[in-house]
Amino acid sequence: MQYYLKKNFRPASLAYKVLSDYPTRPGKGIRPALCLAAAASVGGDYNKAIDTGAAIELLHNAFLIKDDIVDQSLYRRGDLTLNRKYGLALAANAGDAVKILSMSPLIDNLGSIGVQKSLQVILEIQEMARRSVEGQIMELTYVKQNRTDLKPRDYFRLCENKTCWYTVITPVRTGLIIGSEHATPEQLDTFTRFGLNIGLAFQITDDTLNLTASQKLYGKEIKGDILEGKRTLILIHLLNSCTSHERKRIRRILKTPRDNKTDSDVAYVEELMQKYYSIEYAEKIALSLAIKAERILLDECDWMTEKRWKQFFLDQTSYIIKRKK
Amino acid sequence: MQYYLKKNFRPASLAYKVLSDYPTRPGKGIRPALCLAAAASVGGDYNKAIDTGAAIELLHNAFLIKDDIVDQSLYRRGDLTLNRKYGLALAANAGDAVKILSMSPLIDNLGSIGVQKSLQVILEIQEMARRSVEGQIMELTYVKQNRTDLKPRDYFRLCENKTCWYTVITPVRTGLIIGSEHATPEQLDTFTRFGLNIGLAFQITDDTLNLTASQKLYGKEIKGDILEGKRTLILIHLLNSCTSHERKRIRRILKTPRDNKTDSDVAYVEELMQKYYSIEYAEKIALSLAIKAERILLDECDWMTEKRWKQFFLDQTSYIIKRKK
Repeated sequence: MQYYLKKNFRPASLAYKVLSDYPTRPGKGIRPALCLAAAASVGGDYNKAIDTGAAIELLHNAFLIKDDIVDQSLYRRGDLTLNRKYGLALAANAGDAVKILSMSPLIDNLGSIGVQKSLQVILEIQEMARRSVEGQIMELTYVKQNRTDLKPRDYFRLCENKTCWYTVITPVRTGLIIGSEHATPEQLDTFTRFGLNIGLAFQITDDTLNLTASQKLYGKEIKGDILEGKRTLILIHLLNSCTSHERKRIRRILKTPRDNKTDSDVAYVEELMQKYYSIEYAEKIALSLAIKAERILLDECDWMTEKRWKQFFLDQTSYIIKRKK
Repeated sequence: MQYYLKKNFRPASLAYKVLSDYPTRPGKGIRPALCLAAAASVGGDYNKAIDTGAAIELLHNAFLIKDDIVDQSLYRRGDLTLNRKYGLALAANAGDAVKILSMSPLIDNLGSIGVQKSLQVILEIQEMARRSVEGQIMELTYVKQNRTDLKPRDYFRLCENKTCWYTVITPVRTGLIIGSEHATPEQLDTFTRFGLNIGLAFQITDDTLNLTASQKLYGKEIKGDILEGKRTLILIHLLNSCTSHERKRIRRILKTPRDNKTDSDVAYVEELMQKYYSIEYAEKIALSLAIKAERILLDECDWMTEKRWKQFFLDQTSYIIKRKK
C-alpha cells in the first residue's frame, strides 16, 4: 500500500482502447493544421506549435465523445459512436479522460516556448473551452425550450461560441502567439475576425452537409440535425419564411422526441426547406462569409510574411465551403 | 458580428442555474478545508489557498455531475440529481462547464502565489484529475466484466486513484506547496501517505454508510452501491468469504441490469453481508487505516509547526470514520 508503487498503475487495456478510439479514427485534423500554419505564417517554427495543436485536437475529440452521448448519435467518422460501442458509462468517463489528458501537452509547452507564452496559451485554451461549452448549453436551451422565434443573429451568436473559437479562432491565435516574437493585439484581432467569418462558414456548411451529403463520405448520420431539432441557420430561415400553419406543424415535429419522429416528419421539414430555398440561403451566407474572410487575409494581413502559409489560409477558405464531408 | 461585442455574452439563465446547482447545495467541503488547513499548518496564509481549494471543490462537483449521470443516480446532497432534474443533455454539458470553470481559479493563482507555485499546483491538479478518471474507468471495467475474483488489494489500488488523490492527497499537497517557503519531497511524501490512509478510510466509510446510513442524513440513495454492482471492500470481502453456491447467485444478481434488480436481490446480498460480517470487516479496516494516518501525523510531522492545525488534521481522522453522512 505504499503509494509510489502505484505510480505506474494503469487501468485495464480496455480503458485505453476506449480513450484512443476517436483520436485514431481518420479526422480532418483541421484545428491543429490551422495552429501550425499560423505559427509558420509569421516565420515561426511550426514544430513548437505541435503540442498546442495536439491539445486542441484532443479537446475536440473529448467534445465529440460528449456530443455523441448527448445527441445519442449513432455514427462518427465512419464508425459507431463510442456510446453505442461501449455504453454510456465508459464513453462518459473516456470523454473526461481525453479532456484531462489534452491538458498535458500544454504543460509540455513550458519546455519549448517558455513560461510566458505557455501561460498565454493556457489562458487562450481556457477561454475557448468556456465559450464552447457555453455555446453548447445555449444550443441545448434553444432545443429544450422549442424556440421557433430565433433570427439569423441568434444563430451567429450561438455559433461564434459553439464553433468559431475552438475550430478556428483559438487555433490561429495560439499559433500566432507561438510563432511570433510578440503577437500584437491588432494581429490577434485581425486573426480573430478571420476566424469568426471562416468558422461561421464552416459550421453553416456542416449544417448543409448534414442534409445533402452522402452517408459514406459524411461519416455522421444524414439528417441527424432534424431528428435532434438543432436550430441551424437553415431551420431558422425556414421558420422565418413559412406560413404560420406550416410553422405550427414544424413546431410539433421539433417537439417530438428524437426516437418518436417518423420518416414522414423528417421528410415534411426537408421538403419545406426545399420549398423555401433555405439550404440555398445558408449556402449563400456561407459563401459571403468565406469571401469576407478572404478579404481580411488579402487586405489586412501584411504582417503574414510567409506567402506559402498565407496561401494555405486562402486555400482553407475555399476548401471549407467546397468540402463534401 | 464583431466578435468583441460578444465578450460579455452569456447563455440563458437556465444554464447558469444548472451550473450552480450542485456547488450551492450543502456539501461537506472537506477538500478545500484540507487544502486551507495544510497551508496554515506550516505557518502559511490560508487565504492564498482559497483559489486552489475552490478549483478542487468545483472539479469535485463536476465529477459528481458525471458520476450521477453514469450511475443513473436519483439523489445527491438531499435533492434530485442534475440528470433527473434537467435531463442528460443539460446535465452532461453542465458537468463539462463546471470542469472548465474550475480551472479559472488556478489561473488566478498567478497573481497571489507566483508563477512557479502556480505551475506546480497546475501539475498537481492535472495528476489528480488523471488518476481520478483512471480509477473511475477501472471501477467501471470491474463492473462491466462482472469481476468476482477481486482481492482487497485490488480495491485499495482502485481506491487510491479514484478517491484518495482527489479527496485528500492533492488538497494537502497543494496546500503544503502554497503555505511553505519551499515544500520538501519528504514533507510531500509524508503528507501523501497520510492522505492515502485517511482517503481509503474515507471511501470505505462511504461504502459502509451506503448500506447503513439513514436516507435523510446520507443524501444519496441507500443501497445504491448494490444496485450499481460497485466493487466495494464489503462486496469483495463477501465474495471471498461465501460458499461457491452463494457466489454464483451473487454473480447472477450483479450481472442483472440495475433497473431489473429486485428488492429481494438486494436483500439477498445484504443478508449475506451480515452473515459474513463483511460490513464489520470493512469498518475494522477503516479504523486501522485511520489509526495509521494518526500515527503518521504524530510521529512524522514535526515540520507541521502550527499545533492548532495539526489538531485539525487529527480531528479529521476521527471525523472521517465517525461520520453519519
